[in-house]
Order: sequence, then structure tokens, then C-alpha cells
Amino acid sequence: MERKSFEGMQCPIARSLERVGEWWSILILRDAFYGITRFDEFQKSLGIAPNMLTRRLKGLVESGLMERREYNARPPRYEYVLTKTGQDFRPVLLSLLAWGNKHFAEGAASVLIKNIKTNKIAVPVLTDQVSGEEIIASGKFKIVAGPAADDKLRQRFASGYEGTL
Amino acid sequence: MERKSFEGMQCPIARSLERVGEWWSILILRDAFYGITRFDEFQKSLGIAPNMLTRRLKGLVESGLMERREYNARPPRYEYVLTKTGQDFRPVLLSLLAWGNKHFAEGAASVLIKNIKTNKIAVPVLTDQVSGEEIIASGKFKIVAGPAADDKLRQRFASGYEGTL
Repeated sequence: MERKSFEGMQCPIARSLERVGEWWSILILRDAFYGITRFDEFQKSLGIAPNMLTRRLKGLVESGLMERREYNARPPRYEYVLTKTGQDFRPVLLSLLAWGNKHFAEGAASVLIKNIKTNKIAVPVLTDQVSGEEIIASGKFKIVAGPAADDKLRQRFASGYEGTL
Repeated sequence: MERKSFEGMQCPIARSLERVGEWWSILILRDAFYGITRFDEFQKSLGIAPNMLTRRLKGLVESGLMERREYNARPPRYEYVLTKTGQDFRPVLLSLLAWGNKHFAEGAASVLIKNIKTNKIAVPVLTDQVSGEEIIASGKFKIVAGPAADDKLRQRFASGYEGTL
């Protein structure tokens, strides 16, 4: 793997990426949301090599995103389920889904989000739960250094990168 | 790289990942949002090897997420700016940011989103622009097969993976 560890970085995006670990991991998380729990189901769905799948699942368990549970004692059989942290990854997956549909689906989407009551296709947008306002491109929000920002990060924001979203 | 191409996959999440290409690419996109445009600035910000940065920027240009523009003719100097597709990646970045802050910031965030008018810290949630309802965990939305879904995908949804979000 030609990638540097992002562990030491302060940025929450880099930290998040460090936890997820890999493209494959994101697709494993996606399948877990779809309800897949067992090794052979993940393998079938993803067409991934068993040793790779083992490694990725192990990584997701170590990062606290999935939990390994015994569902059969003899012979011992395990299933993999999302932890609370793993479940909270849904907005990232749905944002990827919406972005993919918007730009790369060539006019026809293969997966959509639907409002159960109205039966209408949903258009996901990021909103601020506090003010109820749309965050992106509304000119109403900006990225700022938080209390734990180090000097490098404060400097970056101070030198003009802090801007409206 | 020990990763299979996701190009042939129908899933919009897999397609999106294919376009972004790499963890590094996500951090380059992040820096581009912060206003960085020049090679040496990206390099300084990311601590990435020049040949790796060249490759990632090239990939982002080929995927249509960034544009390479000459800003000086003699000597020729280039800058990298986000295309519309690249700009539309913001919700993914902000969702990663929110997830990182929630689970891995150990109580104190280093980067936050702020409402400019109220000066309050924003809590980003995914909302349906059509109905105005929160999408995640509201029990009001589900993932469904779209018009372009192939048999494998339809089968997956038909066999119980289609569920509320």
C-alpha cells in the first residue's frame, strides 16, 4: 500500500478516512447497511478475495465500526454487525450515493432513496439541525478552527482558507 | 495497489469511489475546498511525495473533478481548481467531518461548521429537499432499486435488503 497513515493528522476528515481504512471497507459498510452479516454473503456480494475480506473485516472490527458476534457455537460461526459508530457512517454513504447519481449515473440511477409516505424520490441535502438551513452553497455557513485545533490548523484558517461553504 | 476496479459495478457508491480514486484524493479535494490551488501548497499542506501528488492530481483531472489551468505563461505555471462535479463532493467531505468529530475527536473538535448569522456551531444532518424530513433513522425513507438497476441489484433488494434507513 502506497499510503501514509493519516493517524497523526488533526483533520476530522483524515481521521475518519483512517478509521474506515480502504475503499473496500466502504463497500463492506454499505453491504452491512443493506443487511448483510455473514462472511460468504459479503464475499458473494463484493466479489472480493477471501483473504482480503478477512483483513478488511478485521480492520473494521479493530476500528470500532463493526462487531464480530458468534451466532453458532458448534461449529463456531461468526457474523459481522455494525456498531453505533458504524451506523453513524450512513450520511457519508448516502452522500456518496447522491453524488454518484448526480454525476455518474448517465441519466438513470440504479439506486435511489424514497420517501415511504409520499413515494417520492428523495433529494438528500446537508442541513443544519440547529437552524434548519441548508449548509452547502447557502452562504450561511463557514468552516472554522475548533477548540482542539493546533497551530498549523489555526494558521491555515487564519491565512484565508476559512471561508463560506 | 491491491484493489479491484469498481468501474463495472452498478452501485453509485462504488462508482463515486472509483472516481475519487484514493484516500489522498479526498484530502486533496478537501484542501481545494479550503482554497488551495497550487502544487507546492498542496504538497506543504499534505506532506505528500511530489510524484504521488502529481499522480493524484492527474487522476482527479481525468475523472473530471478538477481542472488544470495555466496561471502564468512564461514560465508555464499551472493551478488546480475544482470543477462543478468536484464542488459537488462537499457533502461527502462534510459528512466525513461530522462523523469524525462525533466519534474520534475525543471531546474537542479541531474543525467545525459555524452558522455565520447566529455564530452557533452547526450540526449537519441529511435532509430530503423535497419533503424537508430528516433522512437517517427517521423511519421515513428507504433505499430502492432505480430504473437502471440490473438483475443482480434488483434481486438483492427483492431478497430483503431494501430497508428503511
